[in-house]
Amino acid sequence: MSEVYAARRERLRERCAAGGSAAALVSRPANVRYLAGAAPRGAVLLLGGSEDVLLCARPPEDEPGAARPDAGLRLHVLPAPDGDPAVAGAGQAAAQGVEALAVEEHHLTVARHRALASVAPRLRFTDLAQGVEQLRLVKDEEELSCLRIAAEIADQALGELLESILVGRTERHLALELERRLVDHGADGPAFPTSVATGPHSGRLGHRPTDRRVEEGDFLSVCLGACYRGYRSEIGRTFVIGTTPADWQIELYDVVFAAQRAGREALAPGAACRDVDRAARQVLAAAGYSEGLAPGTGHGVGLENTEDPQLAPAAMGKLDACVPVTVEPGVHLPGRGGVRIDDTLVVRCEADGGPELLTITTKELLAL
Amino acid sequence: MSEVYAARRERLRERCAAGGSAAALVSRPANVRYLAGAAPRGAVLLLGGSEDVLLCARPPEDEPGAARPDAGLRLHVLPAPDGDPAVAGAGQAAAQGVEALAVEEHHLTVARHRALASVAPRLRFTDLAQGVEQLRLVKDEEELSCLRIAAEIADQALGELLESILVGRTERHLALELERRLVDHGADGPAFPTSVATGPHSGRLGHRPTDRRVEEGDFLSVCLGACYRGYRSEIGRTFVIGTTPADWQIELYDVVFAAQRAGREALAPGAACRDVDRAARQVLAAAGYSEGLAPGTGHGVGLENTEDPQLAPAAMGKLDACVPVTVEPGVHLPGRGGVRIDDTLVVRCEADGGPELLTITTKELLAL
Repeated sequence: MSEVYAARRERLRERCAAGGSAAALVSRPANVRYLAGAAPRGAVLLLGGSEDVLLCARPPEDEPGAARPDAGLRLHVLPAPDGDPAVAGAGQAAAQGVEALAVEEHHLTVARHRALASVAPRLRFTDLAQGVEQLRLVKDEEELSCLRIAAEIADQALGELLESILVGRTERHLALELERRLVDHGADGPAFPTSVATGPHSGRLGHRPTDRRVEEGDFLSVCLGACYRGYRSEIGRTFVIGTTPADWQIELYDVVFAAQRAGREALAPGAACRDVDRAARQVLAAAGYSEGLAPGTGHGVGLENTEDPQLAPAAMGKLDACVPVTVEPGVHLPGRGGVRIDDTLVVRCEADGGPELLTITTKELLAL
Repeated sequence: MSEVYAARRERLRERCAAGGSAAALVSRPANVRYLAGAAPRGAVLLLGGSEDVLLCARPPEDEPGAARPDAGLRLHVLPAPDGDPAVAGAGQAAAQGVEALAVEEHHLTVARHRALASVAPRLRFTDLAQGVEQLRLVKDEEELSCLRIAAEIADQALGELLESILVGRTERHLALELERRLVDHGADGPAFPTSVATGPHSGRLGHRPTDRRVEEGDFLSVCLGACYRGYRSEIGRTFVIGTTPADWQIELYDVVFAAQRAGREALAPGAACRDVDRAARQVLAAAGYSEGLAPGTGHGVGLENTEDPQLAPAAMGKLDACVPVTVEPGVHLPGRGGVRIDDTLVVRCEADGGPELLTITTKELLAL
């Protein structure tokens, strides 16, 4: 793996050089992990100057659960455990004779940025902006295989839940059980807080589980994901509790299903992100559901459970091959409930078989 | 409750005025919740000018699990759900004729601060610094009663675990079970990721649960807390697995127990934070344990699971009455394991009976 991280750092180095900075200080945890193989709490990566250094407030060995940093990096553990590695990194950059240091102004606070400037007064600070996030958009095979496993784990956890008795159990308990099952199947942990929404809560984006219990006739919508080696899958499904769904439930489900399929089918290298969103949104609008929809119908996944690209009306840019995204339209009818259907897919060209579906749990309307 | 939040905002308003700013924009979630009663995701509080406004990217009703904002505030939901409430807040401050706006430079990123300045070019930005955090140090009765309940919930969850079979179960599963039990007993959720450390991992601060299974003869150290209405308790205990502890385990436990008691007994209004830390640390050092200790032996708790005051060698300041803190010395012997004992207490003067212990689970060395 070491050469993978070295190659990523080299690509970033070229970007910085093009931007006029010989060195960069990466502080955003997901970005540190992408370039260093691990991101011990508070660690920052100093790139360039005479060498690449991972600066940590404490030794990484303090966290057995955590990933190991790339052996190709010099590891620098701060003498005082409560120091700020970013400040130490700026000091080292100055000591290495660096003139311009690119920092992540979208992550560093104003107070930290000031502290950096005060330890290295002669250093010129530039903005690395989303430089690392842009490198992270297109995933390599190593990353995609982690995402496949993360998706498989979520499918397994969800599949097991469907075999258990649901009526009478609370949203909170179902969410906790799903998270336990994710870990059972080898996840580092949940990719994000598991959402379980019943009855009037169903179909709501990012619903926080409450003590409401599953009842006969409810819609039950679930959204979960596994984190595997830092990579985060996402799957959402909606079910009906009881023997037979009501007519309004069948109709609503069919609309959301059709919208989600339209979104999936719009995924292709070169497709505009907003067009994918429109494809799904149009189906909902045509059925009369254009009010109170979520701002987007999908987003990228990777080391973060929500990253670029965004599939939304105002989104700029086009999709590339090997970009994993969610497609997750939903409709929530206040007081009644609703439907969300959410898959994680990898954008592929037609010749490669089109979009690769990572979350394979059935999308038929199951009555549980 | 509404008058409680209004009174807190009034205290902050006075601080700002003293600092030469008629208005403040509070963005740090725990600070927003303290002043507004709730902190919907991304919400910011604009204080002063002609009125106090809670700005949100989405309607708070979207989160049934969440607390309700103080009815005494004007609620402003952004038209575009992907806008930044902080930027909107700066715009409103300018529109209200505010000249100087205090912002939380320790929370706002450089990029966001720039965006604020660009929408309100004539506004002068000052630093609110830790103004709200300082108000949060001393808790009122409402806050203390939430902390008491949060501590009681953690005691219950831990007590139930001790009655179950432990040998053969993994750290991850025990941690997940504890978190489920926290929710069973009415917690909003865990106050922080539950730490379960067995054998060679035991006694390690903030150990992340692994797949290691509990074995006969292990030390088992557990650290958990409940979040109740936003307030976070913390308790840590260490047990021995099997019939009789080894001599080294008994000796080590006695030392850490004595250190933790010394720390607890040093808690008093007016006591210097560093002296409380020294009281505990001295006992460990006298027994030959001065290497590889955690940077602190305790910290404040409240809306965050680690907040001021810090009980550490370099800590400044003194304790006040009604300040809840943890006392949590520990020793970890690499390769062998160790002991941590952690309580949440409220600083009280002698006349009020001295420190109030919130986490009442026994601290005798139990062999499970």
